[in-house]
Amino acid sequence: MNKLLTIFMLLSTVLGLQAQELSSPDKNLKFKFSLQDNGVPTYELSYKNKPIIKSSKLGIETKDVPSFLNGFVISNAVQTSFDESWNPVLGEQKTIRNHYNELLVTLAQPSVKDRYIRIRFRLFDDGLGFRYEFPEQKNLSYFIIKEEKTQFALAGDHKAFWLPGDFDTQEYSTVTSNLSEVRGKMKAAVTPNASQTTFSPTGLQTPLMMKSKDGLYINIHEAALVDYSCMSLNLNDSNFVLESFLTPDAIGDKGYLQAPAQSPWRTIIVSDKATDILASKLILNLNEPTKYADVSWIKPVKYVGVWWEMITGKSTWAYNDLESVQLGVTDYSKTKPNGKHAANTQHVKEYIDFAAANGFDAVLVEGWNEGWEDWFGKTKDYVFDFITPYPDFDVQELHRYAASKNVKMMMHHETSGSVRNYERHMDDAYKFMIDNGYNSVKSGYVGNIIPRGEHHYGQWLVNHYLYAITKAADYKIMVNAHEAVRPTGLNRTYPNLLANESARGTEYESFGGNNPDHTTILPFTRLMGGPMDYTPGIFQTKISAYNPENTSFVHSTLVHQLALYVTMYSPLQMAADLPETYAKFMDAFQFIKDVAADWDETVILEAEPGDYISIARKAKNKDEWYIGSITDENPRTATITFEYLPKGKNYEAVIYADGKTASYDKNPQSYTIRKMKINSKTKVKVNLASGGGAAISVKPIK
Amino acid sequence: MNKLLTIFMLLSTVLGLQAQELSSPDKNLKFKFSLQDNGVPTYELSYKNKPIIKSSKLGIETKDVPSFLNGFVISNAVQTSFDESWNPVLGEQKTIRNHYNELLVTLAQPSVKDRYIRIRFRLFDDGLGFRYEFPEQKNLSYFIIKEEKTQFALAGDHKAFWLPGDFDTQEYSTVTSNLSEVRGKMKAAVTPNASQTTFSPTGLQTPLMMKSKDGLYINIHEAALVDYSCMSLNLNDSNFVLESFLTPDAIGDKGYLQAPAQSPWRTIIVSDKATDILASKLILNLNEPTKYADVSWIKPVKYVGVWWEMITGKSTWAYNDLESVQLGVTDYSKTKPNGKHAANTQHVKEYIDFAAANGFDAVLVEGWNEGWEDWFGKTKDYVFDFITPYPDFDVQELHRYAASKNVKMMMHHETSGSVRNYERHMDDAYKFMIDNGYNSVKSGYVGNIIPRGEHHYGQWLVNHYLYAITKAADYKIMVNAHEAVRPTGLNRTYPNLLANESARGTEYESFGGNNPDHTTILPFTRLMGGPMDYTPGIFQTKISAYNPENTSFVHSTLVHQLALYVTMYSPLQMAADLPETYAKFMDAFQFIKDVAADWDETVILEAEPGDYISIARKAKNKDEWYIGSITDENPRTATITFEYLPKGKNYEAVIYADGKTASYDKNPQSYTIRKMKINSKTKVKVNLASGGGAAISVKPIK
Repeated sequence: MNKLLTIFMLLSTVLGLQAQELSSPDKNLKFKFSLQDNGVPTYELSYKNKPIIKSSKLGIETKDVPSFLNGFVISNAVQTSFDESWNPVLGEQKTIRNHYNELLVTLAQPSVKDRYIRIRFRLFDDGLGFRYEFPEQKNLSYFIIKEEKTQFALAGDHKAFWLPGDFDTQEYSTVTSNLSEVRGKMKAAVTPNASQTTFSPTGLQTPLMMKSKDGLYINIHEAALVDYSCMSLNLNDSNFVLESFLTPDAIGDKGYLQAPAQSPWRTIIVSDKATDILASKLILNLNEPTKYADVSWIKPVKYVGVWWEMITGKSTWAYNDLESVQLGVTDYSKTKPNGKHAANTQHVKEYIDFAAANGFDAVLVEGWNEGWEDWFGKTKDYVFDFITPYPDFDVQELHRYAASKNVKMMMHHETSGSVRNYERHMDDAYKFMIDNGYNSVKSGYVGNIIPRGEHHYGQWLVNHYLYAITKAADYKIMVNAHEAVRPTGLNRTYPNLLANESARGTEYESFGGNNPDHTTILPFTRLMGGPMDYTPGIFQTKISAYNPENTSFVHSTLVHQLALYVTMYSPLQMAADLPETYAKFMDAFQFIKDVAADWDETVILEAEPGDYISIARKAKNKDEWYIGSITDENPRTATITFEYLPKGKNYEAVIYADGKTASYDKNPQSYTIRKMKINSKTKVKVNLASGGGAAISVKPIK
Repeated sequence: MNKLLTIFMLLSTVLGLQAQELSSPDKNLKFKFSLQDNGVPTYELSYKNKPIIKSSKLGIETKDVPSFLNGFVISNAVQTSFDESWNPVLGEQKTIRNHYNELLVTLAQPSVKDRYIRIRFRLFDDGLGFRYEFPEQKNLSYFIIKEEKTQFALAGDHKAFWLPGDFDTQEYSTVTSNLSEVRGKMKAAVTPNASQTTFSPTGLQTPLMMKSKDGLYINIHEAALVDYSCMSLNLNDSNFVLESFLTPDAIGDKGYLQAPAQSPWRTIIVSDKATDILASKLILNLNEPTKYADVSWIKPVKYVGVWWEMITGKSTWAYNDLESVQLGVTDYSKTKPNGKHAANTQHVKEYIDFAAANGFDAVLVEGWNEGWEDWFGKTKDYVFDFITPYPDFDVQELHRYAASKNVKMMMHHETSGSVRNYERHMDDAYKFMIDNGYNSVKSGYVGNIIPRGEHHYGQWLVNHYLYAITKAADYKIMVNAHEAVRPTGLNRTYPNLLANESARGTEYESFGGNNPDHTTILPFTRLMGGPMDYTPGIFQTKISAYNPENTSFVHSTLVHQLALYVTMYSPLQMAADLPETYAKFMDAFQFIKDVAADWDETVILEAEPGDYISIARKAKNKDEWYIGSITDENPRTATITFEYLPKGKNYEAVIYADGKTASYDKNPQSYTIRKMKINSKTKVKVNLASGGGAAISVKPIK
């Protein structure tokens, strides 16, 4: 160590600016920050005296200025506490408590004259969040990140629920294995996708859910990903140390920052109860409050849509069978329609009728606009213009018709990854929406990104996704972005971001199927960062019923699909199946009609990642509760309790349950519906089939 | 050769579809197309029986479909002729004749089922143009270009006037040497630039001007560069074959095409008279006519501006001395102005006064907007917003003031190469212009391109430059784009593209100086594709007079600067020096006040690339002529003739000439002005100093 550094370290010791310790408000979590050999910042975390994160390094490697890796001294350390509550615009509960103890360390680097950074640590009862900060200062302005070097030194070979680390897709099936098995299972896990870029034989995505051998649940993710590259994790499977691995741009750089700036928060949620993980609001709490002055136009959306029939292959997005079209050149009115184009005026009106009859807010229509004949796999720049309908889709008539039925149209903006094209058309596209009765949009980024060389999760696209959201707010438009970077709690700051897909959703049931435990994992992984537009509600689980050539099937029972409306939180929910199928099961469909999408309260009754989840939620501003319970391929009996109901009050519960012989693969459509009078003391045992579920609506007895 | 191909070739011979020959209308140029070994398309060109292009291959190598290189047969060949005249909106002459013989060959590739391309050759009296065409067809739609393989097999080790091939800059000094010397001179030629990417030790830019040992002038360039990558040339200096070398994108691909599509025209202009090269309209003739319905808003622009004082270092673009600013965050009103910010209301009003008093159309102001403190070299994404002025620049007041004096404001959009940022702001920026009295914009792309990895001359940016021009037309805005791809005659199709810089301009006189022969070369190179905003008119050639720390000087006499208004054609011309300097030379300045920027007729009196140029032009719709004559470092006597004047009519000529002891380096400001009565029979001998010139205005005698 050089002489100057030695003196500083001595001084720091004398002044007490050496190791810093922090506890969570309930004291279960203990955190320590210190500088190790050569002034390397490190931290560690324990829960109820058990190690969660062993001594782990922090730092950032830069390309063009001296790196932020070592040679630090603690020049200041401030501890504060914070305890406030806030109300989300839409959410799982009406009020969220934000209660943490914070440590803000200022680190000088004597070898780099007059330069310093800060690291801010917030310790909540449910976990830790920390971020790097680069304050405005004379000797630091612009710098380029080569790699972030944040470590998470795990305490053991945990069981993990993981996705292969990738710069372009999250649509892999989750693999459940010990960390030591990741390397051997990686190859099989990387199934084909429209756009994919793995980076390491032991690379992992976040949110990463783990369970230690001694029953501790640990979830690693990030919060408030703004103007930075998305973080993946690279596992060292000899010592189980995870290290941050950012997404590169076209030339290999991993971030361009200008002080004052900060990284996103790196989050570690911990508990010995799996239900606490699902109940955690840590990620939302780390995000900034919203600056939107008016949020009255942001509302939950339950919708149906012209979509599943294309996913199953029954219909097409495309209007005709041309192999190649040029917008503004191809005269669609002169081409021969293929006879399978679902997005036609008459058919959409049927969906509007269905929505109106059943209390749905909106109708999504995919395939309404010119360009679907060659939209995919051609790296096509000018692929859509977002405003020109096919000849058989009458925008104005559908606007009139939907409005007459008090139904909104939901827009679809598939960008095909052609992002400059989308931005060029965005204002016109949003204006077109407002002029024609659309107040929400499902956007998509299928395929490799254009500009070529950029990745879905790099800083360039992270910037774009937020640009699309904030511009949408100017038009009072709500956004549901598919194939975008997975969320990190930004829906607190930008509440018109209703949901994302950004994971393997229901469509994959038609592309070969999802594992029966898929939906018992997703709330512990993908949904930790924000709501998911999972688009459940498939009642006809055999796809061949719609398209004989497609032998896929949905790996859950019909009732499991009902339960998902409760277990997969989203303020934007689709009843994804075809109206003619729902027509055959209107008694079961009643649950979907009734269930809310916005909540006053949420109680995680029981949960085990990969096995089962049972959740109860109170509808916002209503005296109604909805319970959803799901299981994996193992049948089970769920005991549903109602202690959260007001005492002494009676309710009618309608219980939707798997039939006695139901199973996801052999008998998915078998179900029973029974009514019961209940109160807060009632316990109801429900049998869940293999891949099954249970759904309960609770309303006051009239 | 395979059997199928042999049969086809035999058939083709029988049917006469083998070699194809074409002559220019005046028969001086002879062209031949044929298929060589293995069905490789080749062409050759001769002029007055002397070889210009020896047998040269044509073709395109692709990445994802079978290449277009060999195995061709001629399935059709059609010869036609065309002879029409058209009027440019603004130009060097009122009417342009478009007269050529055309050969259109259709080439099938039997090894690739049912696929064909076309090559279209047009042979004019002044040269050849040809392009590849990819018609709409079943078996060809999308393809990716790996490299274009167009050869130009030169007939000898010509003298060449060349720039190092580069994907990002044209601002090198032209090197004059034999082709065999290119390799040895390359290193010294590649001087530092804000953004530069060479690709070969013998790479060359176009337009490429050459002179053979037997006195033939040959110019190679391209016309109508639209939705394609810019072409450079790679010289094989063992056999003097040039081959096309396209500009790659961030991942190394060289173009994304979708049939129907075409390449730009590859152009070869030929004559034994250098004056014919300058008089050639071949490149404009190959461009499409304009589709703009209304062109009444497109007019020539003579302007002055707040610019040269910053280029010389006398003043700054920036308002204060902060090292780092963030738009919308930095409160400029609270920062300390540096006292050298030229773009302030009072100072700009002085320029408006000067413009009004001297008949100038517009005043350019650079440095008017927030962001100049850290605009350069930081790879800054959100670098300018194009609408927020500095605290000392009153947009509305200057609008009012300029309008009251019948002067337009000229906008400045420096993009700093941050192209997504420019596109995001473009509509607001153009609207801001129209709302505030600006109808023309100088745009700039200084520094490396963002999205990172793209190049100034790749297809991505070629698309962007045209996007900026066509969107400007929606607002009736004229565009002068600096650092953009060098022009290729698109100002015929998009006449609001008034000019580009896209070469080493006058500013480099302040950055170390230009060679004294620089302006005797540029019309043979850079200006072949379109007008150049050279910004001449520097009367104070010693920069130290403005900034004692800058010892650069302009390598021409004052009178040479006057002549440039005639020899450097542009409908947009700046009087670039400071008003207070012009005030000391108002008699010489009179020429700049008088000279037109739009012409009925142009006569190239004499010219030799690198040595001298003398041009006479008739002002549009006026009975006035302007003559400009320039020389390199060699003094010379120019004999100016007036045979183009109407016979029997008398005119007054005002002759601006170098003083007897003038020279560009020792005595640049020495000049004489004399008046003469002349008619069409007059001959005037003028002595041009070293780096000197002569300028003559001719008006009817009153």
